[in-house]
Amino acid sequence: MRDELILENIRSNLIRQEETIIFSLIERAQFAKNSKIYEKRGIPIKDYDDSFMMFLLNGTEKLHSLVRRYTAPDEHPFTSGLPEPFLTPMIYEWPIRKTNININDKIMKIYINEIIQVICEKEDDGNYGSSAVNDIYALQAISKRIHYGKFVAESKFLLNQEFYSKLIKEKNKEELMNSLTDVTVEKKLLERVQLKAETYGQEPNAKNPVLKIKSEVIKEIYMKYIIPFTKEVELLYLLERLN
Amino acid sequence: MRDELILENIRSNLIRQEETIIFSLIERAQFAKNSKIYEKRGIPIKDYDDSFMMFLLNGTEKLHSLVRRYTAPDEHPFTSGLPEPFLTPMIYEWPIRKTNININDKIMKIYINEIIQVICEKEDDGNYGSSAVNDIYALQAISKRIHYGKFVAESKFLLNQEFYSKLIKEKNKEELMNSLTDVTVEKKLLERVQLKAETYGQEPNAKNPVLKIKSEVIKEIYMKYIIPFTKEVELLYLLERLN
Repeated sequence: MRDELILENIRSNLIRQEETIIFSLIERAQFAKNSKIYEKRGIPIKDYDDSFMMFLLNGTEKLHSLVRRYTAPDEHPFTSGLPEPFLTPMIYEWPIRKTNININDKIMKIYINEIIQVICEKEDDGNYGSSAVNDIYALQAISKRIHYGKFVAESKFLLNQEFYSKLIKEKNKEELMNSLTDVTVEKKLLERVQLKAETYGQEPNAKNPVLKIKSEVIKEIYMKYIIPFTKEVELLYLLERLN
Repeated sequence: MRDELILENIRSNLIRQEETIIFSLIERAQFAKNSKIYEKRGIPIKDYDDSFMMFLLNGTEKLHSLVRRYTAPDEHPFTSGLPEPFLTPMIYEWPIRKTNININDKIMKIYINEIIQVICEKEDDGNYGSSAVNDIYALQAISKRIHYGKFVAESKFLLNQEFYSKLIKEKNKEELMNSLTDVTVEKKLLERVQLKAETYGQEPNAKNPVLKIKSEVIKEIYMKYIIPFTKEVELLYLLERLN
């Protein structure tokens, strides 16, 4: 099996990604919700009809697309109309199947409507640019983590081809989802994430330490969105695995 | 005195910026040095003669310039040829004098030649895009912190105008630098930064915890570059203060 698909490697990769996600949410949480940046024409931009944040996100993705970001199997754009890379393509055999699975629209919705609402305290502080730049960083980190489910699914499939092939042919979503769920691992993950959020959110030598972000909030984000969305990607991937 | 210039506010702003800098360096340190991304045409890009990282940095700054990033008194671009903002300018009276002081060229040099060399272990891991994206984040955070020296200098000037005006007229750089140096505060800052680097760089519940970045390295970066560069900006600002 290829290195990228060994479960132990995937797991340590996912654990390292937790830092990136937690750091990015702590960074975003220092600013207010600034809902205006998510509203269509909330901040008017000439010849542009979507939100301020989408303008910056699309611009960033255009730039990153030029240098080949979205040819990597673990990167998925949020916006469309991206230019072709002008770097010569890497000769690289993907460790997973190429699919069109991309649930970023769903991630974007819960990010704006749920995550921002619980991590930010104030309503508006005028820090629109900083908020949007941090949004992009956080969205990219969360999207990468969730779509990593493709690697998890491929790895599990290869370890148990007969079992999975049967369920896939039967389109048995319930059993597939059961096979992707490990309550013990999930519980451990949630505890670890909460502990990390406490550790990274503290001001180490402050007299009256106030956490920069409530650690239960990070745990909830994982419990309600990141874990189930990852499993959704795993399921979608498996359902296409035999095509 | 305006809120932005009250020393206590400046100080807590600088303390918060430490997290951003440390997070960004920890993030960058997960990848190899990847020197190729800093070399001119190290990764050939059509019709572009500088490095891969500079290409991404310039593209990012062009985008951010459009939405007014560089009209803020604490933001300074690394690259030139940036477009004019197409958002209407904010009506906002700057709390500090407008100057052309920008030492980002110097920051860039020590970032590539010194900081990357001490925070990254491996030589090349092929993660060019991720490395450059994290470079941009780290460079912006470090630049912001160092140019915040303008706020520090303005605040100190306003609190002691007679004293500073005399030294400025005399162009007495030595005495000015002495007046900007507080050994006790610097010592405390270095200790705090090292403690933060230890706290944020740890894997909280790992059995054999390996720090993601050596905390002494972060302390050294502050001691050798960030503190002296900030004071350099303070001095440059004061020397222009009476113009």
